[in-house]
Amino acid sequence: MAHVNENYRKLVAGYLFPEIGRRVKAFAAAHPEARIIRLGIGDVTLPLVPAVVEAMHAAVDDQGRQAYGYGPNNGYDFLLEAILEHDFAARGVSLEADEIFVSDGSKQDSANIQEIFGTDCSVLVTDPAYPVYVDTNVMAGRTGRADARGVFAGIHYLAASEENGFMPDPPRERVDLAYLCSPNNPTGAVATKENLAKWVAWAREHDAVILFDAAYDAFIQDPALPRSIYEIPGAKECAIEMRSFSKRAGFTGVRCAYTVVPRALEGTTAAGERVPLRDLWARRQATKFNEVPYVVQRAAAAVFSEAGAAQTGEQIAYYMENARRVREGLESARFTVFGGVHAPYIWLRTPEGTGSWEFFDQLLERTHVVGTPGAGFGPAGEGYFRISAFNSHDNVDEAVDRIRKAFG
Amino acid sequence: MAHVNENYRKLVAGYLFPEIGRRVKAFAAAHPEARIIRLGIGDVTLPLVPAVVEAMHAAVDDQGRQAYGYGPNNGYDFLLEAILEHDFAARGVSLEADEIFVSDGSKQDSANIQEIFGTDCSVLVTDPAYPVYVDTNVMAGRTGRADARGVFAGIHYLAASEENGFMPDPPRERVDLAYLCSPNNPTGAVATKENLAKWVAWAREHDAVILFDAAYDAFIQDPALPRSIYEIPGAKECAIEMRSFSKRAGFTGVRCAYTVVPRALEGTTAAGERVPLRDLWARRQATKFNEVPYVVQRAAAAVFSEAGAAQTGEQIAYYMENARRVREGLESARFTVFGGVHAPYIWLRTPEGTGSWEFFDQLLERTHVVGTPGAGFGPAGEGYFRISAFNSHDNVDEAVDRIRKAFG
Repeated sequence: MAHVNENYRKLVAGYLFPEIGRRVKAFAAAHPEARIIRLGIGDVTLPLVPAVVEAMHAAVDDQGRQAYGYGPNNGYDFLLEAILEHDFAARGVSLEADEIFVSDGSKQDSANIQEIFGTDCSVLVTDPAYPVYVDTNVMAGRTGRADARGVFAGIHYLAASEENGFMPDPPRERVDLAYLCSPNNPTGAVATKENLAKWVAWAREHDAVILFDAAYDAFIQDPALPRSIYEIPGAKECAIEMRSFSKRAGFTGVRCAYTVVPRALEGTTAAGERVPLRDLWARRQATKFNEVPYVVQRAAAAVFSEAGAAQTGEQIAYYMENARRVREGLESARFTVFGGVHAPYIWLRTPEGTGSWEFFDQLLERTHVVGTPGAGFGPAGEGYFRISAFNSHDNVDEAVDRIRKAFG
Repeated sequence: MAHVNENYRKLVAGYLFPEIGRRVKAFAAAHPEARIIRLGIGDVTLPLVPAVVEAMHAAVDDQGRQAYGYGPNNGYDFLLEAILEHDFAARGVSLEADEIFVSDGSKQDSANIQEIFGTDCSVLVTDPAYPVYVDTNVMAGRTGRADARGVFAGIHYLAASEENGFMPDPPRERVDLAYLCSPNNPTGAVATKENLAKWVAWAREHDAVILFDAAYDAFIQDPALPRSIYEIPGAKECAIEMRSFSKRAGFTGVRCAYTVVPRALEGTTAAGERVPLRDLWARRQATKFNEVPYVVQRAAAAVFSEAGAAQTGEQIAYYMENARRVREGLESARFTVFGGVHAPYIWLRTPEGTGSWEFFDQLLERTHVVGTPGAGFGPAGEGYFRISAFNSHDNVDEAVDRIRKAFG
């Protein structure tokens, strides 16, 4: 009989968000009268902006007039050029179109990127982290089993703590692959140039590869903060960057993102031959992926138009106003909170002695508000809880009010 | 330094279609006056049908009115229900919605499906085959190196030949995973119920898993021929099926497909514990994939509407008229041809003593027609050549005329 990939059996319970979904569904079934407010999963709540809607209609009409079949392998030029200009040249970063790979999501990219590396590569995550980084390395066989806290043997967990502002410096030891995320999911912390420069220096010293997830860059409010790791000199020799339209333009149901693999970035064979990682990723994508739908690429390009940028900017401001209300509301309820300034996530310390899944259940029971337990993001997330700013002002106010009454 | 996945280095040259693209580009640059006719890659040439265009416009408007964020994990109910009704119940096959996984392409699904199996699984392909089946197993480390003909150690190549009508019976030995494709890409052959019944019996006897690629089912002209392997009793215990909207509805640039993993289908751990493959695939998709865009799922659902079915049916008929013209035209030029009756591909024997890449270059030089060399699909493809029926009647007539003059 065909053997299954037994690495899957090492995974802890379900993937985090389906597990939350199951608990909420069960609660809703038991309490049909409860008006549940979802501040859990980071899903957008505003409709697509008019500039995007218009571009999508035009693209649909294009496809009704003539065939738009398989597109160019890694994205249409109209989108690649807009990305190069607005996301990079505008911040002083020069990249080539063939270093950009348009995809259907940063989740996919951050899940798939490990495939181009050897299974013997050592892996570091800052802890807590987006679960996909660890889970996909587990599935690929780079780890042992998990202990009772969900800590996998063979993964380096670098604690992001209150002490280091949830943005740790690089470790002393070398690892092959280091996942970094700024603005951070789940802590809402943001890396400074100084912090990233330390990581780039470390990666270059140790010949490590940084996998930099910047899916939330649009929420950065301070123009001096880096949006791309390539704003740090030397990063092209050591970093892959992932960017997304999901949160920036409300594309969680539209699906568009991209990954940058600079030509200068290399890995090595066991025999010591240096290999451009860009070519491996191109081969991976050519073999296991097609292109992003034409209509979606047109939608993404419209985000860069003058109207599109202004309209999506307003949506970001709307969500960041939510983040402010959550942050201040929870503080007034005497919670200790972090993040929510350059990120749509607020990271709160759970009440003394209350575990994060326990707090999840308490919050749901007592306030009918859904958040995300920190422990779901890794062992250092225990004792913390993530609140997402994606909802309406009214729902956020109502949620804060309920939490204040129940816990304040 | 980070080690790369060295399995990638076993891959033979580029992926087939980019290699063809490079040769055609070089030819076009050297002969700017040549009017090249592309019958190579199987890409559609007709625009989206009105019913699909209308559904996409409506979906875009939906998204402009309210947020359609992350959809249900494996597809919206409106699409799953249409698939269950039209693709299965209508042919007497009963499946459940949670056995269907909507995706962004059969290429992706046929590339990714191997991930849920152990790397020790033995793999069979009928030869010639869609290159993705072999290449993804190479990348996952299930093979040795390729020999000069591109034959990988560790893959079972089961020759599809003129003698067996390009639809071979199962082998005597057992293997763990067998990729079957009907209607076949590249040979255009189609499996009968009798043929599939032999495979199902073989798979059940040997506890093998059949990976059944039915991406071209819409081109089957004879209603007695099976469109789904689940029309064969017992197939739910031994087969995964992949279906696509790409060729059926001109969706190569829209991107929608689905994979069926029946609950009854199991693999095993090394220790002998039986594991439902459906749950592994669900975990794989939940961790490494999001959903297909809402607008695309609405487009796919419209293919099943009365108007959508009629309009896409006319497109299939248009392409099949092309196939008839190619088949008969090449026969009149004294080529030996196969396929093209229940599939959009014509498989021709290259002139005696002419290799398939040699014929590719000859055809391009002498007629400015692009086809696909059989050797690109595996060793048994050597001496054969694939012509695709995706083009306009006029271009097909012109191509046939040129070929007749050059080779007839």
